[in-house]
Amino acid sequence: MPFVRIDALGAGPDRLDALGRAVQDALVETLGVPPDDRFQVLTGHDGTTGSLRYGDYLGVHRDEGIVFVAITMRSGRTPDRKRAMYRRIAELAEDYAGTEPRNMFVTVTENDSIDWSLGDGLAQYAPAGNGPAGASGAS
Amino acid sequence: MPFVRIDALGAGPDRLDALGRAVQDALVETLGVPPDDRFQVLTGHDGTTGSLRYGDYLGVHRDEGIVFVAITMRSGRTPDRKRAMYRRIAELAEDYAGTEPRNMFVTVTENDSIDWSLGDGLAQYAPAGNGPAGASGAS
Amino acid sequence: MPFVRIDALGAGPDRLDALGRAVQDALVETLGVPPDDRFQVLTGHDGTTGSLRYGDYLGVHRDEGIVFVAITMRSGRTPDRKRAMYRRIAELAEDYAGTEPRNMFVTVTENDSIDWSLGDGLAQYAPAGNGPAGASGAS
Repeated sequence: MPFVRIDALGAGPDRLDALGRAVQDALVETLGVPPDDRFQVLTGHDGTTGSLRYGDYLGVHRDEGIVFVAITMRSGRTPDRKRAMYRRIAELAEDYAGTEPRNMFVTVTENDSIDWSLGDGLAQYAPAGNGPAGASGAS
Repeated sequence: MPFVRIDALGAGPDRLDALGRAVQDALVETLGVPPDDRFQVLTGHDGTTGSLRYGDYLGVHRDEGIVFVAITMRSGRTPDRKRAMYRRIAELAEDYAGTEPRNMFVTVTENDSIDWSLGDGLAQYAPAGNGPAGASGAS
Repeated sequence: MPFVRIDALGAGPDRLDALGRAVQDALVETLGVPPDDRFQVLTGHDGTTGSLRYGDYLGVHRDEGIVFVAITMRSGRTPDRKRAMYRRIAELAEDYAGTEPRNMFVTVTENDSIDWSLGDGLAQYAPAGNGPAGASGAS
């Protein structure tokens, strides 16, 4: 279910792939996401048709190794789970792609069960006829 | 008002256009969105500077025909409306672009009236001076 | 903290850069964001691998100068602040990039303090051990 966008500067297919695996493995380890529950858009920006901008906000020195990770998922994860997720994303991005932890920027946006259709035109997490449970996702 | 991002693999202009029309027509039919209320970012990924990742989660077999649709809209649509929307998106994507329903992955993110500026620097859905009604969008 | 995506048609590096500066300066002026709190993905679409779609919804005539700005930030800004932000984005986009105000389309999505990791694998806005304050971001 998590839907993930990863944006990096000048990243070729290999680096993008390594970053995608790092994020997915971190979600599997820390959130209990199934390994095949992987839905990612990986984009490298070459400075011509696309680019990234970043500053040293909060005293973290970032450089052209910057990686933006934007995760959309259902609400319900505790703060501790999210903290563990951030930590593990940074660790695995360094292991798999050589990205320094200071360059991993992650943001999470949450929605509800009814907000997902994972194929076949269905709302798999909130099917029709489920009564209050099915409807509750949109409360 | 819906703001829609569509990401597909190796999609040329014609296929992206067909997918964009499929999603818009589905929103018009199932949510009552005006036809000219269309705001979309269509992106094809060729595997070099960008790519998609996906698994067979929930037993849905997906392949390189995968299409990610991310819809941002104001909250308030009922679960039944959203289910109708997912169904119609899948139907029209097959009709217009030949995309199999199993490959249509849709996620919705909601916000409030005050969260939209549709041009001219104004918050058209929550104009100033509307008193409690205008302010309520940010509650 | 705001994380911003800007999408424009046929925008070269100079125009993308000007649009990015316009949005950032508007956030600094109207929301009090620190100047180095800048995290942006700038994308130009050339009509082949990517494109934008738009209509004249609400009687605003848009054209190929259209710019989509999608801002993710923590909740808490008042409606008046957001209105000032929209106004200033439109003004500065015209000043810096020559974009007409009618072509600036902005949408905001909000999340919580725990939903940000600004580097080093940490949740800087909601560190562990902060008790109720630290946990409240996920309520």
